[in-house]
Parts: sequence; C-alpha cells; structure tokens
Amino acid sequence: MADSRAKANQQAVLLSSVDEAEAAFYDAMQHADIDRMMAVWADDEEIACVHPGGLRMVGAVAIRAGFEAVFAHGAVQVTVANVRRVEGQGLSVHHVLEKVQAMTAEGMQTAYVLASNVYVHGPQGWRMVLHHASPGQRDDMQEMVEAASVLH
Amino acid sequence: MADSRAKANQQAVLLSSVDEAEAAFYDAMQHADIDRMMAVWADDEEIACVHPGGLRMVGAVAIRAGFEAVFAHGAVQVTVANVRRVEGQGLSVHHVLEKVQAMTAEGMQTAYVLASNVYVHGPQGWRMVLHHASPGQRDDMQEMVEAASVLH
Repeated sequence: MADSRAKANQQAVLLSSVDEAEAAFYDAMQHADIDRMMAVWADDEEIACVHPGGLRMVGAVAIRAGFEAVFAHGAVQVTVANVRRVEGQGLSVHHVLEKVQAMTAEGMQTAYVLASNVYVHGPQGWRMVLHHASPGQRDDMQEMVEAASVLH
Repeated sequence: MADSRAKANQQAVLLSSVDEAEAAFYDAMQHADIDRMMAVWADDEEIACVHPGGLRMVGAVAIRAGFEAVFAHGAVQVTVANVRRVEGQGLSVHHVLEKVQAMTAEGMQTAYVLASNVYVHGPQGWRMVLHHASPGQRDDMQEMVEAASVLH
C-alpha cells in the first residue's frame, strides 16, 4: 500500500530541474511531509538512503518507513549550505552540508551533516536515487579543500 | 604536482566497465596503491570522497591527500558484499557493504562500512565521481529491506 501511494505521488509531480528536486526534498524535511518526500524519489527498486549514523534503506517502502520514523519527531529544521555538484548527462551529484537545529532539554542544538544527493533525469523529470548522510562538522568542505591547496 | 600525476594516470587507464572501475578501486585499497587509486577517479574538480567518520574531500588533490593518509597505515584489508546498483545512461550508483579487517593490540578486528560509489562514463571509460562511506553494521542492507517488507 505504501508502495502504490509512493508511485501515485511520483507520477503526479514533474520536477523539471535538479534544483527543484533538491528544494522539494528539503522542503519535505522542513514540513515533515512524507508524501512530498516520497514524490522526490525515483521509481527504482534500488534507490537508497542512509541517515546519519543509521542503516542503509533500499527501496521506496524501506525509505518511506525511515522518513516516517524521522518525521514522527516532527519537522526537521534543516538548512543547506556549500552545495557542490558533478553534472553528467541526465545525472547530478550534489555534495551538501546540512545544518540541522533541534530544541532539546539543553536548549537549541545545532548539528552538521554531510550529505551526498544523487539525481537522475527520467520521464517525470529529475528524481533522487541516493541520499547518503553522515555526521559532519561546521566548516567541513572549505577546510579540506583549503588544507589540500596549502599542502601541495 | 600531485594533480599532474593524477591526470597522467587517469589518461593511461581505460576502465571499460563499471565493475572494472569498482574492482580497481578496491584493489588499490588492498594494495595501498595511490596511483592506481587516483586513476579510478574522474577528471572533474568536484569529485568528492567521505571516509567513515571523516570530513568531505573535494577535488583530486584533497582526495589524494586523504588516501595517502589512509595508506600511511598500510594496505586496507577490505572485501565487499551486497552490491546493489541503480543504473542510468552513463551512470552507475553502487551501494556496497565493505568488510574491513585490521590487526590491533586486541587481535584481528572487523568493521563494517556502508559505501555509496557513483561512477560516470566518459572519454576514458568509467570513472568514480563519489565515494561516500560511513560506519555500518554486519547485516546492514538485508535487515532494513526485510524489516520493511514485514511491516507493510
């Protein structure tokens, strides 16, 4: 049932640019909107998602269950920075630094997440095939690129 | 200098299939062979690599420096399992469970790593544009897919 719902959504939305697909992904996070989230993903059995410190989920059913678990805690206050991209024909690989804020018993906490988002272009426009996220640090990308430039 | 070495290697090797590219990547790990490693990567400024628990490295110079740091500890005893893939035109996204073994003061230790490897096809055949790795668990992929099947 989750699968047919996901597919209905995928067919209903045309994401005509990669930026539109990425914006929809983070908008779904910010609004804990599971249908909007699933509409971003490609209709492929092997789509995969890794949440920070989490297991890998493969396929729309597992990915939906994973995001439902995240959204059970409410909307995710996430903003993105430092988007870098590798573009190919019908392919876009984005490297994103996510800044996630959450209210805890100790007040507002901020975490940084390194995410790799891969999109492919198909009949319904641009769709996500991979979201791989892992714990990051505040100035993640700049530091490594600049450090390497100094070293060589 | 590291950049020109990396480019010379990229031009010297034709990786005619995705499997050949992935085999070369893990063979380079197993032999701590930095030139073979860098020959697998695409000639693109925005190629990116995240080691488990590490920062993101963007570009050939930073990625080389990162693998040199890994290889300074010697060859990496890594085997791969559970490869799943999303194939597009000139694109291949692989989900891999890596089993890494290392001898420590407490004897042989085994760690599992979730890696997402993205390859694109260009003039020199298949090249890696992304390697994103994060700490995993032994039965990572099966568990999530099967759990989701049971839930729905």
